[in-house]
Amino acid sequence: MQKVFGIDIGGTSVKMGCFTAGGERLDEWAIPTRTAAGGSGILPDIVASVEAYCRQHGLAQSAMVGAGIGVPGPVNAEGIVDGAVNLGWGRCDPGAVFTEATGMPAAVGNDANVAALGECWQGAGKGRKSLVMLTLGTGIGGGVVVNGQLVAGCHGAAGEIGHFPVNPDEPETCGCGKHGCLEQYASATGIVRLAGRALTADPHRPTRLREGALSAKAIFEAAKADDALALALVDRVAALLGQGLATIAGVLDPEMFVIGGGMANAGEFLRGRIERAYRRLAFAASRDTPIQLAQLGNDAGIIGAAKLAFGARAR
Amino acid sequence: MQKVFGIDIGGTSVKMGCFTAGGERLDEWAIPTRTAAGGSGILPDIVASVEAYCRQHGLAQSAMVGAGIGVPGPVNAEGIVDGAVNLGWGRCDPGAVFTEATGMPAAVGNDANVAALGECWQGAGKGRKSLVMLTLGTGIGGGVVVNGQLVAGCHGAAGEIGHFPVNPDEPETCGCGKHGCLEQYASATGIVRLAGRALTADPHRPTRLREGALSAKAIFEAAKADDALALALVDRVAALLGQGLATIAGVLDPEMFVIGGGMANAGEFLRGRIERAYRRLAFAASRDTPIQLAQLGNDAGIIGAAKLAFGARAR
Repeated sequence: MQKVFGIDIGGTSVKMGCFTAGGERLDEWAIPTRTAAGGSGILPDIVASVEAYCRQHGLAQSAMVGAGIGVPGPVNAEGIVDGAVNLGWGRCDPGAVFTEATGMPAAVGNDANVAALGECWQGAGKGRKSLVMLTLGTGIGGGVVVNGQLVAGCHGAAGEIGHFPVNPDEPETCGCGKHGCLEQYASATGIVRLAGRALTADPHRPTRLREGALSAKAIFEAAKADDALALALVDRVAALLGQGLATIAGVLDPEMFVIGGGMANAGEFLRGRIERAYRRLAFAASRDTPIQLAQLGNDAGIIGAAKLAFGARAR
Repeated sequence: MQKVFGIDIGGTSVKMGCFTAGGERLDEWAIPTRTAAGGSGILPDIVASVEAYCRQHGLAQSAMVGAGIGVPGPVNAEGIVDGAVNLGWGRCDPGAVFTEATGMPAAVGNDANVAALGECWQGAGKGRKSLVMLTLGTGIGGGVVVNGQLVAGCHGAAGEIGHFPVNPDEPETCGCGKHGCLEQYASATGIVRLAGRALTADPHRPTRLREGALSAKAIFEAAKADDALALALVDRVAALLGQGLATIAGVLDPEMFVIGGGMANAGEFLRGRIERAYRRLAFAASRDTPIQLAQLGNDAGIIGAAKLAFGARAR
């Protein structure tokens, strides 16, 4: 039976799993991410863990189809990582290092891209050939699947939906150095920033948001409790996300959209608002494209990495 | 030697060509488009012309790889046309009709999509695996090539770049029924509309644009002659197009962009301005993606249709 390792490298832990070609998860475990010394211990730790697993289960490494590896940084179609700040990595080729050490083929992808592939294979998009996933967290990540294959992009920047230019007049600078990126408004950090601005602009407006610490979670809770300011903020964010999805539909017209990441915990309250904005702004032919919440949570990374190992990448 | 027919159905004529797998054009001709009676004569005319060509050149129809057909309307990944107003067609399956009559396989695509495939195969994008093409004419069309394959979209609406939502506050209605689509500003019709608005808003502003008929060509000529209003209009349109390309880069990060259509006749004057806006707005990794003028002109349609016949379509 064909088997692969799905490996998702995060800033604090490396999640790993062993999967069959049919998507069955045989095992799952995690090891710490050793970011010291420029992250030079991360790959050796992964190799050691994979080798130990093979020994323990009597698997010949040569019998494995290979491994897929998700990395938190830009990864091009050749699997070259162009720096991964949270791991301490510069430009590198982790797939080549892994293959050199284990003899197994390896396919490397960006973590948000790989998560989209996971949702397409075993999650919200199961049975679909194309989808675009938005991951709404501290920033906004994304992933694009066309024809069942992950699109990495020429410079590893496909799915960088958080950096859609939406407001050229924004005075504050985005983490990427530009002004007015989508994630400056519609990420967890973005909505908190908008809330802070609104509270400063109108210091006497009554709102629950002045009580306790300001967070995306607190804003969604206040909005659900009908706090007018919080509701206005959520509506603004949903409108921007709906406009973003309508734009993506004009490029790719995918079979579906998937919303994941921590902010997706706001659930139907957020999804429904994004959908209403989308239906208003999308080109008629794509207006009924389903928009669904992600289903795999943090497992999307290892599942998508496993699928990537089975060769699901476009150029 | 493998040969295909590339067929581009326009509102007034059907362009046809016979091509080798290497892209060599062996012959090229055109027949009128009979749009009377719901366009029911169009496919029989094409079939008759293809059969006459085969007889004349001693080609067995069974020896042909098939035909690619570009249609001015939405075409999904299965080749189903969802209406083509200029031809009088409703929902139909022209490939099946063609195959039934000739015994040759047929692949059908949207004309702007197919033109992008043509530019990728034999034009500005020769040697590339991915590109996005913008066709700036009366409206704005587009086409997306990923992994050397045309992306049609789930509802045939991939590449509908003209209907990117760019201004939810636009009072006038786009041809598609929405408000604030990119083509309401940045197409040939769009820039004329903006000029008309500007002339009405400030009736005493001195400008060459009050002389003669208002057209996109006249606006570009005035801008090239340093007319301040015309220049401001061109800069606004270029900024919107640069923003559109920067957004597309955030979705797909293609190897290149191609600008075609009648408005591309403004040449470097327009291309350079779009490029400057793009460089300012694109995510850093994609900032240097080349933006080039189309090279195949009206031939892109038959060339792309020929490539489509060789199987270059994603789902």
